[in-house]
Amino acid sequence: MKALVFDVYGTLFDVGSLAEACRALVPEPEALVSSWRAKQLEYTFWCSLMGRYEDFARITAEALRYALERSHLAIPEEGQRRLLEAWSNLQPYPEVRAALRKLKRYRRVILSNGTPVMLETLLNNAGLRAEFDAVLSVDAVKIYKPAPQVYGLALHHVGSAREEIGFLSANGFDVVGAKAFGFTVYRVNRMGTAMDELGIVPDATVRSLDEVAALLESSEPVGVTKNW
Amino acid sequence: MKALVFDVYGTLFDVGSLAEACRALVPEPEALVSSWRAKQLEYTFWCSLMGRYEDFARITAEALRYALERSHLAIPEEGQRRLLEAWSNLQPYPEVRAALRKLKRYRRVILSNGTPVMLETLLNNAGLRAEFDAVLSVDAVKIYKPAPQVYGLALHHVGSAREEIGFLSANGFDVVGAKAFGFTVYRVNRMGTAMDELGIVPDATVRSLDEVAALLESSEPVGVTKNW
Repeated sequence: MKALVFDVYGTLFDVGSLAEACRALVPEPEALVSSWRAKQLEYTFWCSLMGRYEDFARITAEALRYALERSHLAIPEEGQRRLLEAWSNLQPYPEVRAALRKLKRYRRVILSNGTPVMLETLLNNAGLRAEFDAVLSVDAVKIYKPAPQVYGLALHHVGSAREEIGFLSANGFDVVGAKAFGFTVYRVNRMGTAMDELGIVPDATVRSLDEVAALLESSEPVGVTKNW
Repeated sequence: MKALVFDVYGTLFDVGSLAEACRALVPEPEALVSSWRAKQLEYTFWCSLMGRYEDFARITAEALRYALERSHLAIPEEGQRRLLEAWSNLQPYPEVRAALRKLKRYRRVILSNGTPVMLETLLNNAGLRAEFDAVLSVDAVKIYKPAPQVYGLALHHVGSAREEIGFLSANGFDVVGAKAFGFTVYRVNRMGTAMDELGIVPDATVRSLDEVAALLESSEPVGVTKNW
């Protein structure tokens, strides 16, 4: 494996940790976060398909307005601004920090829907920026995951064969997109949830980043299917 | 207005009516239908963005398998087949039949994600096929809504200026896609739900197809914004 490429939201960082910032503002913070996140992703798909890219910061703000309206909630501009800023202070999943260090002999790269500013701020705030060789954003190609152009960014940066790039994501669209592109894909499935169909199967499914470290150190050939 | 173009699932036909077929097989039919439909649409976006089109019949079957697995439900193949067939027997919304007749002086066209076979069967079973001049399916362009190629199919078929084509849909991605393309868009909002943001606003929002007939017969200029 020549490099490891990491998704950010939902993979390294817990989007659910936004609920903390929502708690003071709305009665059902988890429900709001869930509908906010779902709409945010939908908008990335729609904009991409329409050929009308808007950056992730703007999409995130628009998705918040939709989620609030849908739940008949009104939050003043100031409160909405605080919720948007909370994307810069998401909590990394508990094993992430140590697991990234265990994987330090690999070149590690970020590939995310986030804007460069959102990503740099989040990684810096979490003290994780130094773990990564590069922070690649879809903003460079103006289309969102799972479009192949996005995965092409990481391929171009690493400059090796596709299957020598290990890709880690917890998001279904990202798992199938990266696998369809030809990366060696580790699906991170912390919750043991159902796997997306579409006939595209990741090379391995792991419960945490720790398991990726263990898999890479084992003698198993790259690309062995270890789904559970 | 030179022609009226209609979306099918959720606009003319009630996807929720699938719950009837599910009732004998699962404990919470409405929840299953809701997660099935959401996943079906997600898959249309993913496949389109990956450039790996699969037809709507196959996507619908794959989304059903996902929705069942996610809810830890097992239904034998025979039962799954019956649920898939239920897409050919969806219920039209109550006003649809009479409203289509009221609009008969307009050329009326179907434009849907469904396969040609799914659409012809559904319209024939409902006795509505004769209302339409043509049944256009995304299958002709191998990409799903809201890609502009899809709306181009209707434009090509009708052969008039874009704004002279009235487009009716209840689906957010379809409303923004058709409006971004340049059609005159009537958003059908039966439930009074929140409107999608993204800065793309339909020309009018109606509660039912009856209101479209009324709007078209009024003296209002085409394209007047009548959102509520």
